Amino acid sequence: MTEKKNINLTLDPENWESMRQLGHQMIDDLFDYWKGIREEKIWKPIPSEVKEFLDQPIPELGQDPETIYQEFKNNIFPYNKGNVHPRFFAWIQGTGTPLGVLADLLASGMNPNVAIGEHAAMYVDRQVVNWCKQLMNFPSDASGILVSGGSMANITALTVARNSFRDEKIRTIGLKSASAQLVLYCSVETHSCIQKAAEIIGLGTEAVRKIGVNESYEMKVEELEAQIQQDMQKGLLPFCIVGTSGTVNTGAIDPMDDLLAISKKYGLWFHVDGAYGALAKLDPKYAGPLKAIEEADSLAFDLHKWLYVPYEVGCTLIRDAKKHRDSFALTPNYLIQESRGLSGGLDSINNYGFELSRGFKALKIWMSLKEHGREKYAQMIAQNNRQAEYLAELVNGNPKLELMAPVSMSITCFRMIQPGYVESQLRELNREILLRLQEEGIASPSSTILNGKYTLRVANVNQRTRMEDMDLLVKEVLRIGTEIFESNN
Amino acid sequence: MTEKKNINLTLDPENWESMRQLGHQMIDDLFDYWKGIREEKIWKPIPSEVKEFLDQPIPELGQDPETIYQEFKNNIFPYNKGNVHPRFFAWIQGTGTPLGVLADLLASGMNPNVAIGEHAAMYVDRQVVNWCKQLMNFPSDASGILVSGGSMANITALTVARNSFRDEKIRTIGLKSASAQLVLYCSVETHSCIQKAAEIIGLGTEAVRKIGVNESYEMKVEELEAQIQQDMQKGLLPFCIVGTSGTVNTGAIDPMDDLLAISKKYGLWFHVDGAYGALAKLDPKYAGPLKAIEEADSLAFDLHKWLYVPYEVGCTLIRDAKKHRDSFALTPNYLIQESRGLSGGLDSINNYGFELSRGFKALKIWMSLKEHGREKYAQMIAQNNRQAEYLAELVNGNPKLELMAPVSMSITCFRMIQPGYVESQLRELNREILLRLQEEGIASPSSTILNGKYTLRVANVNQRTRMEDMDLLVKEVLRIGTEIFESNN
Ligand SMILES: Cc1ncc(COP(=O)(O)O)c(C=O)c1O
Ligand SMILES: Cc1ncc(COP(=O)(O)O)c(C=O)c1O
Repeated sequence: MTEKKNINLTLDPENWESMRQLGHQMIDDLFDYWKGIREEKIWKPIPSEVKEFLDQPIPELGQDPETIYQEFKNNIFPYNKGNVHPRFFAWIQGTGTPLGVLADLLASGMNPNVAIGEHAAMYVDRQVVNWCKQLMNFPSDASGILVSGGSMANITALTVARNSFRDEKIRTIGLKSASAQLVLYCSVETHSCIQKAAEIIGLGTEAVRKIGVNESYEMKVEELEAQIQQDMQKGLLPFCIVGTSGTVNTGAIDPMDDLLAISKKYGLWFHVDGAYGALAKLDPKYAGPLKAIEEADSLAFDLHKWLYVPYEVGCTLIRDAKKHRDSFALTPNYLIQESRGLSGGLDSINNYGFELSRGFKALKIWMSLKEHGREKYAQMIAQNNRQAEYLAELVNGNPKLELMAPVSMSITCFRMIQPGYVESQLRELNREILLRLQEEGIASPSSTILNGKYTLRVANVNQRTRMEDMDLLVKEVLRIGTEIFESNN
Repeated sequence: MTEKKNINLTLDPENWESMRQLGHQMIDDLFDYWKGIREEKIWKPIPSEVKEFLDQPIPELGQDPETIYQEFKNNIFPYNKGNVHPRFFAWIQGTGTPLGVLADLLASGMNPNVAIGEHAAMYVDRQVVNWCKQLMNFPSDASGILVSGGSMANITALTVARNSFRDEKIRTIGLKSASAQLVLYCSVETHSCIQKAAEIIGLGTEAVRKIGVNESYEMKVEELEAQIQQDMQKGLLPFCIVGTSGTVNTGAIDPMDDLLAISKKYGLWFHVDGAYGALAKLDPKYAGPLKAIEEADSLAFDLHKWLYVPYEVGCTLIRDAKKHRDSFALTPNYLIQESRGLSGGLDSINNYGFELSRGFKALKIWMSLKEHGREKYAQMIAQNNRQAEYLAELVNGNPKLELMAPVSMSITCFRMIQPGYVESQLRELNREILLRLQEEGIASPSSTILNGKYTLRVANVNQRTRMEDMDLLVKEVLRIGTEIFESNN
């Protein structure tokens, strides 16, 4: 008989009390951090000793939790990315909120696997998906799923689009046996995750048609339609149009009404990538232009961006719930559903996506939407848009600065100019401004290339930003730019 | 000029102090919960009022955080799934640990997007991936990525396998233009996520060959080889063999050495699904049989299962880092890498997987491996295996119980028997035992079907389980089974 003694090991703390105290310490440290974040540098270079410390082999033996936490405080906490800071404007990364973080604590502490079974988290998840539909004015019988972010939300939707195409039965027979090559349409400004999705789901890079954009970076509708017709003449199978609600570069909105109409005309799936900007719908200014996304076959949007919820969480909504389920449902023997007990309850969430195991990411949305309500989010999002517009006004009011794209949603692209500088010099100047802004810990915009021109890019999905931060940003860009210019001469 | 006043809204708390106190309250409540969990019922039915409460429309206006937390405590916390409990044995779901949860708190509080940029979390992530290689004895120049779980780990690996197949250039040209249909091999006992992955990446259900198993539920090697040859003769393209290290039903291990040899012989990619059981490698008993997984082209395994880390986190390792990167890398203009500042640093993690935005899930692994060290994990995993064996001994020692499969790793399948009962009666009896075990809050095994026979299934990746829990489980199965039998007569 197997020895029963000496084998009641556990990973629970030897000393519950000191672990609990450590938890309290962390709460205090986080609150101090958030409360004081405005006075902190947004970014610090990582010393080489820290990099060495973070390059050691796997520990063989354990260490006490207090020491580990101290190591964290010395080596990790100070060198944070910065998107919790009021002047983080790089890429499109939300700030998070204190209650959102506490919800993550609770979710991790309960630790349910929110895929199957009869337990409260399944109902919270369903409720949050319903709230997402309500936020987007999607029909109540649409389906949806919470995923890790915009990339997964888009690829989930595109998989359904592909699998639902006519009676091709792609899920079963695969793309090789499809009657012809499937083709997908988006613009040159579309986020790279759409191309990645097309590659992953087996269409291939070449099946992605990147349609040109107008001077506002919006997809050109005539070019789209001409391309569809040309592909049809070649015997290819156009199956999906991806419109972007808020491009990553400039916040541009593709002409949604036109894309919807063309989708209908040619029997294509209309998908909207609203990872960044679907939530701009809550700002009255954008309610009109974004009305048509309510009619899309599918919509992807992020909650860790413009709902300011901590990482990770995005959402896919699919108008036709049956097509959604038909794309992913599988019922193996080890997941038999019962009418009672733990295996009862709602339809398994893994019938709607790639993942089986899923954490309780719904809780942070649940608590956050309850904390602030839809109205406050609408105001907050509108405020970010007004801040971007305000920044553009500052830029337009200053002859040393140049606005590089029309402001749409909460993205402002601009750069400093110098009379007589050629393009490569402007690039170097602004690149150096960007790096010094970060290195001096002042602000973190990012950069991009628009029409071949290098530009600073200020993307604002930040619940801590104030109007005065825009004043400061402009002032510091001018100061640093002038310093660089002077030291070059 | 845009109005500057009245637009400094924020989602930060109006009252920092009371929000901080709420955080402390949550820490205390979680610690009380974990410490006392052994004395709690493992599962409770959800009252209909709670379900109603969790079915309200989106809140328009905010509410104070204390009330929201009280709603959580009334409606969500008590109806947890139960995998934190010492007698949770359903599906394969880890328990989590207190420090792992606190790490999730810190990760969410820092809220970095761990995809790109120069910040500490990128180095922690890299270090943890290196530790994963060391755990699995993978070469140090292999690559890897942390993902949400086993399903994503498997599909990530299979995408690389597909894209790396000969010079087919599938990433670029898509499957339709491949020279023939690609075919993948696994066993009938393979987890459903492999079929799902094949469907998503465009191969189709029909491209998955489910090879039969022997009486120990291990893939039959001759049948595999015959199938490969037959497919080749048909002009199809066998490209990948998936071996499972610990099947979800019975913990069976496919014959790794043979699968490796056949992969080499036919030039196929050898992928190992070790979502559940790759970590059994740390138990000396399984080190031998699992040696060959070190030679696999790719390996998927979960840390939220047998490393007892809170949800979500799995890992994919790929032997050939270049093939891995070539499958996913993309560098759009808005993600230009610099040699300095925030945009400097390590290679972008999104060059290695589906996702762009990613949270800081590495931190909980980092803290956990430091807390316990590899050795303690090895003991803990071995203990779960010994507990499963002990349970099988109890079953074998009792004529009213029947062991339904050889015990492999930490899964024990058994049922209660009754002389004269036919199969359907045994199914009903054991199903009712299962439901009552859960409904009475005693223990949560799950069920499955083996060779057409219904069985209770005890899967143990639980760091809180003690030997005595197995005694209790057997005692209660017998008590409940007898009660059912008697009330039927
Ligand atoms: C328009 C757009 N689509 C998709 C994505 C990808 O979303 P995620 O980073 O959450 O994967 C982004 C990210 O910035 C985006 O802006
Ligand atoms: C063998 C095996 N593969 C894959 C999976 C899927 O892993 P996950 O649930 O983390 O997606 C599981 C889950 O139990 C499993 O046991």
